Amino acid sequence: MSQHQSLNYFRRVVQDLPPNPGAEILRYGWKKSDIVSLGQGEGCAPTPDFIVEAANQAMVEGKTHYGPVLGQPALREEISAYYKRIFDVNITSNRVFVTASGTTAMHLALTSILDKDDEVVAITPIWKNLLGAVKLAQANAIQVPLNYEEEKQNWSLDMDAVFAACTSKTKAILIVTPSNPTGWVMSEAEMRTLMDFTRERAIWVVSDEVYNRSLYNSSFAPSFLNVAQEDDLLLTINSFSKSWAMTGWRLGWLTGPACAENIVRDIALYDNMCPPTFTQYGGIAALQQGEDFIQKQQKDWAHNLDIIMDRFDKNPKIHSYRPDSTFYSFFKVAGEDDSLEFAKKLIDEASLSLAPGCAFGADVGQWMRLCFAVSEGKLQNALDRLESVIK
Amino acid sequence: MSQHQSLNYFRRVVQDLPPNPGAEILRYGWKKSDIVSLGQGEGCAPTPDFIVEAANQAMVEGKTHYGPVLGQPALREEISAYYKRIFDVNITSNRVFVTASGTTAMHLALTSILDKDDEVVAITPIWKNLLGAVKLAQANAIQVPLNYEEEKQNWSLDMDAVFAACTSKTKAILIVTPSNPTGWVMSEAEMRTLMDFTRERAIWVVSDEVYNRSLYNSSFAPSFLNVAQEDDLLLTINSFSKSWAMTGWRLGWLTGPACAENIVRDIALYDNMCPPTFTQYGGIAALQQGEDFIQKQQKDWAHNLDIIMDRFDKNPKIHSYRPDSTFYSFFKVAGEDDSLEFAKKLIDEASLSLAPGCAFGADVGQWMRLCFAVSEGKLQNALDRLESVIK
Repeated sequence: MSQHQSLNYFRRVVQDLPPNPGAEILRYGWKKSDIVSLGQGEGCAPTPDFIVEAANQAMVEGKTHYGPVLGQPALREEISAYYKRIFDVNITSNRVFVTASGTTAMHLALTSILDKDDEVVAITPIWKNLLGAVKLAQANAIQVPLNYEEEKQNWSLDMDAVFAACTSKTKAILIVTPSNPTGWVMSEAEMRTLMDFTRERAIWVVSDEVYNRSLYNSSFAPSFLNVAQEDDLLLTINSFSKSWAMTGWRLGWLTGPACAENIVRDIALYDNMCPPTFTQYGGIAALQQGEDFIQKQQKDWAHNLDIIMDRFDKNPKIHSYRPDSTFYSFFKVAGEDDSLEFAKKLIDEASLSLAPGCAFGADVGQWMRLCFAVSEGKLQNALDRLESVIK
Repeated sequence: MSQHQSLNYFRRVVQDLPPNPGAEILRYGWKKSDIVSLGQGEGCAPTPDFIVEAANQAMVEGKTHYGPVLGQPALREEISAYYKRIFDVNITSNRVFVTASGTTAMHLALTSILDKDDEVVAITPIWKNLLGAVKLAQANAIQVPLNYEEEKQNWSLDMDAVFAACTSKTKAILIVTPSNPTGWVMSEAEMRTLMDFTRERAIWVVSDEVYNRSLYNSSFAPSFLNVAQEDDLLLTINSFSKSWAMTGWRLGWLTGPACAENIVRDIALYDNMCPPTFTQYGGIAALQQGEDFIQKQQKDWAHNLDIIMDRFDKNPKIHSYRPDSTFYSFFKVAGEDDSLEFAKKLIDEASLSLAPGCAFGADVGQWMRLCFAVSEGKLQNALDRLESVIK
C-alpha cells in the first residue's frame, strides 16, 4: 500500500489540512544536536515548586480517579474567585469549564458552535493551529489582518473591516488578545464596540486570552468578560500554560454563558471524558499562590525585552518594536522576505530555531517570532547566532 | 434568552445527541449523601506508589514543558516493547501514538477516518459514549448485537450478521474486546476471519482493547495486532486506566498503520497539542514494573467475582453468568425490565448506584452492570443494598 493510496482511507478534511510551517520548522530544527530553540511558545522555567508539590500531594492522597467532566468543583470555584480578584468580574463557577489544555478549550469552543460551511472571522496574524482547528471543524476562516504602522511601531485593528467581513454565514469572530505573535492588546473600548455588534447580530465571540497575565505596563489585560453580559454569546479560552509555566500540564479552561454548560459537557465527554484529576490541584495552588511568580516572570521578561530592543536598535537590518504583551519579539530582517526560508537558514547556518511569520498568516510572511521567556544567557547566545547570520 | 432559544446558537449535531443514561444515573446518585456507587468503570484502588513516584520525580526534574504531539519517544518505545513482551507481536514505535486518555484515542481514531454520513458497524452492547463519539463525527452507527444464550450463559458473535451489516458506506467496524459490559472476549480465530473480510473490502477495524489485561483464565486477551498485517486498516485503542488503576491520569494510546502517524498527529495537534509530559513517565513505570500489580488486581477481582456468583446463585430473582473478562457483573432481575427505572429505584430506596443496561444499547435494556473492582467490604455492602430492594 503506497502512501498515496493509503491516504484515501482517511477523512477528507484531514488530508486537506494545510501544512503547518511552525511544526515543520520545529521538527527541522530537532535534527541538529546543537540547536538553540526560541521557536516554541513557552518559557524555560520549570513549573514553580509549590504547584508541583500540590499536584504530588493530591496524587499521594489518591486523587487518581475519574472526576467530573467539566473539572473539579473546587477548581471551577477557584477560577471564579480568580476572575473576581484580578478582573473584578463575577463569573459563577457553572460558567467555568476546566479543560485538558487551552488547545482543548479552543477545540471544545469551536466544535460546540461550528457546523460545516459556517464562517469564522479571524483577526490575524494568528497562530495557524487556530485556523487549522477551524478548518478541522469544516468551517471557513475569513481573515481580517491587524494593521502595522511602521512609524508608530504599532499594531491596530480596523473595526469597520471586521464588521464588513461578517456575512449571514458568520457564526463567530475569533480574537486572540493579547495577540500571539504581535503583542497587540485589544482595548476595553474596542471590546465593548465589538460585543455590541455581535450581540445585535447573534454572532459568537471566541476570545483566546491565554496571554492576559503577560503584560509590561499592567498586571493584566482586559478580558471580554469585563464588558460582556452574562448571557452574551461569548466563549473565552484560557490556560495555565503561559502565566504559571505549566505548558506540559495540559490544563486550561473555557468560560461561556450558562446555557453552554450542557453542550460543552456533552462534547468533552466524548472527546476526553474529563481532565486529569490530580493536576487540577496544581491548578488550584497556581491560582491561590501564583501572583508573586507572575510578577517575577513579568519582571524577568521585561529585562529580556530590554536586551533585545537594545541589540536590535543597533542593527540597521532588523526592524522591530516594543510589544505591550506576550513574551515574543516579532521582527523583520531587511533582505529576508521569506520567513520559512530564513528560518531554515538560521537552523542550517547557526543552529537557531525561531518561528517563521508564515506560521501566523500570509500577511506576516516576512516577519520572525522569537520567544524571550528564557534565561539571559540563552537569549544572548541566540541573539549572537541570529546576528552571525544577518551580518 | 431562554434555554430553548439559546440552543439555536450551538452546533446542530450536538443538540441532537441522544441522552446519556449512564451519566444521568451517575448525576442522579450524587444527590444522595450516603450513596454507594458501583456504577462507574473504575476500581477503588488508588494508583500504585511506584507509578505516582515516577511521575512526581519527572515533575521535580522539570519535565513540565511541551512534548511531542504523539508522546514522549521513551513511552512510545516502551509501549512497543510491552507489545513484544506480553503479546509477542512487533509494533514499531512509529505506529504507537500516545494520547491524553483512551477516550481521546477513540476520538482521534474516529475523527481520522469518519466523514459525514459514513457508516460504522458497531458490535453491541457497547458503552453509549462510543456511539456518541460516532454520532459527533456525524457518522451513523449500525448496531450488530452479540447473542446471549441463557442455557450456556454465554455471549457470542454471529460473524455473518457483521458481514451482512456492511454496505458500500461502511467505513469501519467498531469492536470492544474484551467487551464492556458483557465480558465477552473475541477469539483470535474470529479476529482473523474479520481481518480477512475487512482487508478485502478496505474497511477499518477500530478495536477498543482497554480491558485486555483484565482476564480470569489468562494473563491477557488477544489483540487484533496479533492477527493483523502491519499495513492493515486497523486502529487499536488502549489506556492505562483499567490495568494500572490510572483512570484519573487520562493517559492512553492508539496504534495504527504507519501511514496513520501524520494524520493522527495533525488532528491531535488541533485537539490538545500533546499529552501531559510528566504523567507519561508514570506510564513508563507502569509498563516496566506493573505486572505484579496486574496479577494482584486479577486475583482480587476473581475473589470478588466468586462472592457475587455465590450470592447471585442463591437469589432466584437474579440471572447472571461468570464473565471471562472485565470487572463487571452483568445481570438481570426478574420483574425489573426497565434498567433506567430500576437504577433510579436502587438509588431512591437503597442509595446504590449501578449502571443501567440501557446505557449500553437497547438490546440490553433489562440488564444492570455492577463494577466489582472494589474492596470486599464495599462489595458486600452494595450486594446487601441490592438484595434489600429485590427482596
